[in-house]
Amino acid sequence: MLAFVHAETSTGCLSDAQTLTSLAHAHDCVVIVDAVTSLGGSPIKVDEWGIDAIYSASQKCLSCTPGLSPVSFSERIVDYVKQRKEKVHSWFMDLGLILNYWGSTTRTYHHTAPINGLFALHEALLLLKEEGVERAWERHMRHYLAFKAGIEAMGLKFLVREDARLPQMSAVHVPQGANEAEVRRTLLSEFNLEIGAGLGPLAGKIWRFGLMGYSCKPENVMLCLSALGSVLADAGLAIEVGAAEAAAHRSYALQHARAARQAREQRVAAA
Amino acid sequence: MLAFVHAETSTGCLSDAQTLTSLAHAHDCVVIVDAVTSLGGSPIKVDEWGIDAIYSASQKCLSCTPGLSPVSFSERIVDYVKQRKEKVHSWFMDLGLILNYWGSTTRTYHHTAPINGLFALHEALLLLKEEGVERAWERHMRHYLAFKAGIEAMGLKFLVREDARLPQMSAVHVPQGANEAEVRRTLLSEFNLEIGAGLGPLAGKIWRFGLMGYSCKPENVMLCLSALGSVLADAGLAIEVGAAEAAAHRSYALQHARAARQAREQRVAAA
Repeated sequence: MLAFVHAETSTGCLSDAQTLTSLAHAHDCVVIVDAVTSLGGSPIKVDEWGIDAIYSASQKCLSCTPGLSPVSFSERIVDYVKQRKEKVHSWFMDLGLILNYWGSTTRTYHHTAPINGLFALHEALLLLKEEGVERAWERHMRHYLAFKAGIEAMGLKFLVREDARLPQMSAVHVPQGANEAEVRRTLLSEFNLEIGAGLGPLAGKIWRFGLMGYSCKPENVMLCLSALGSVLADAGLAIEVGAAEAAAHRSYALQHARAARQAREQRVAAA
Repeated sequence: MLAFVHAETSTGCLSDAQTLTSLAHAHDCVVIVDAVTSLGGSPIKVDEWGIDAIYSASQKCLSCTPGLSPVSFSERIVDYVKQRKEKVHSWFMDLGLILNYWGSTTRTYHHTAPINGLFALHEALLLLKEEGVERAWERHMRHYLAFKAGIEAMGLKFLVREDARLPQMSAVHVPQGANEAEVRRTLLSEFNLEIGAGLGPLAGKIWRFGLMGYSCKPENVMLCLSALGSVLADAGLAIEVGAAEAAAHRSYALQHARAARQAREQRVAAA
């Protein structure tokens, strides 16, 4: 069994889930994917990539209330669960019992469902369906690119190399001369902007910026860049306030021009 | 270890939690109590009775959204959890990890909390505090007695003998000549009133009437009695429509008079 996190929020890495799944299957392993932060934010093709078991969460890129974990299992996993001999220690996560909700057999009552959360998830999925999941993926990439342009214009560096970077959560090195916790406190108290701290060996060394789901929009990119620039300049760092916003604006303009050109070329090709 | 359900909703029995806990302690057992349906509806005195571990639920007599389970553990249980050697199989219910939320040690992040549910529970508990938990217990008893008077006036019989009966959930024998499922369907479609079916060996034999938390109020008692009387009379049973409501009304009046007399006697004794 190979288990991995698709979108890793403590570091900001995106795993190559397709390649990892192929490798695992080549070695006769089943794959369990943690898609907590990727669902709705990054492409994930469960059936096409042949992922055996996958779980996510309601409160990340689905922008729903926390408390639910959407899951999907292949037939192979369902068979495995059904053939299990050892008693499951957790009643809460006893899939054998939960499976009795499905299928043509008598529907067995397992537990009182958190129905308000289910209504909220239904609405969140409707919003995603209206936008289109591919457009949601593009939106996360678009705002990440603008955010990245701004961060780099301030001379800050990302933790993760570019080709493994997660668009919806950016880990950025704390620059020399900045008081890591003080900057976060000021962003929260002055700008109502909460950014994450580093965890474990990265504690005190990085900031983590989430641009997920509903919060992934231009006004938040601009607010975050201008607030961070102000706070760092106030702390005495050599930051030109406004440079990050200008860089983000250029990124949006370039992306817009590129998309318009591609649409034109597609129209010409189709004509 | 002795584990038992305090308020059993499939049958409508109330366990004598105080006596069971004393007996268990006399035999050096710890006690785990399921108080899912009793919390807020029936007296339960965790510290006074010396209950070691107890859990409840948000959606029964607390009238909150489902999805949360309030728990309480004695120091004895906390020590037991801390000294546990075997690895816990369920990450979700790993109390050793969850205990790191408490105390003077570093607060460890365990999981994303269902924060909306917590706000709802907070509000539900404020409502209960405003009413007073003792008055909530009295309210459940008062409406059960009125409901019982009405049920008996229709000639229906309770499943559980009177001294073991749970006030917030009444199990009543389906009378001869009534189509159990048809009656429930009609109550739901005509009166927007959902009552429970029997489970397991009691399937088809009893109806279960819940009068819990917010729903435990006179208009629901009266609606339920009049709807049930109508539906049973329509089905051809010898039910005098209106007799149940009259009996419930007499019960309320008697209880009101008794409470007024007791208050008067207390005033006299105090004077």
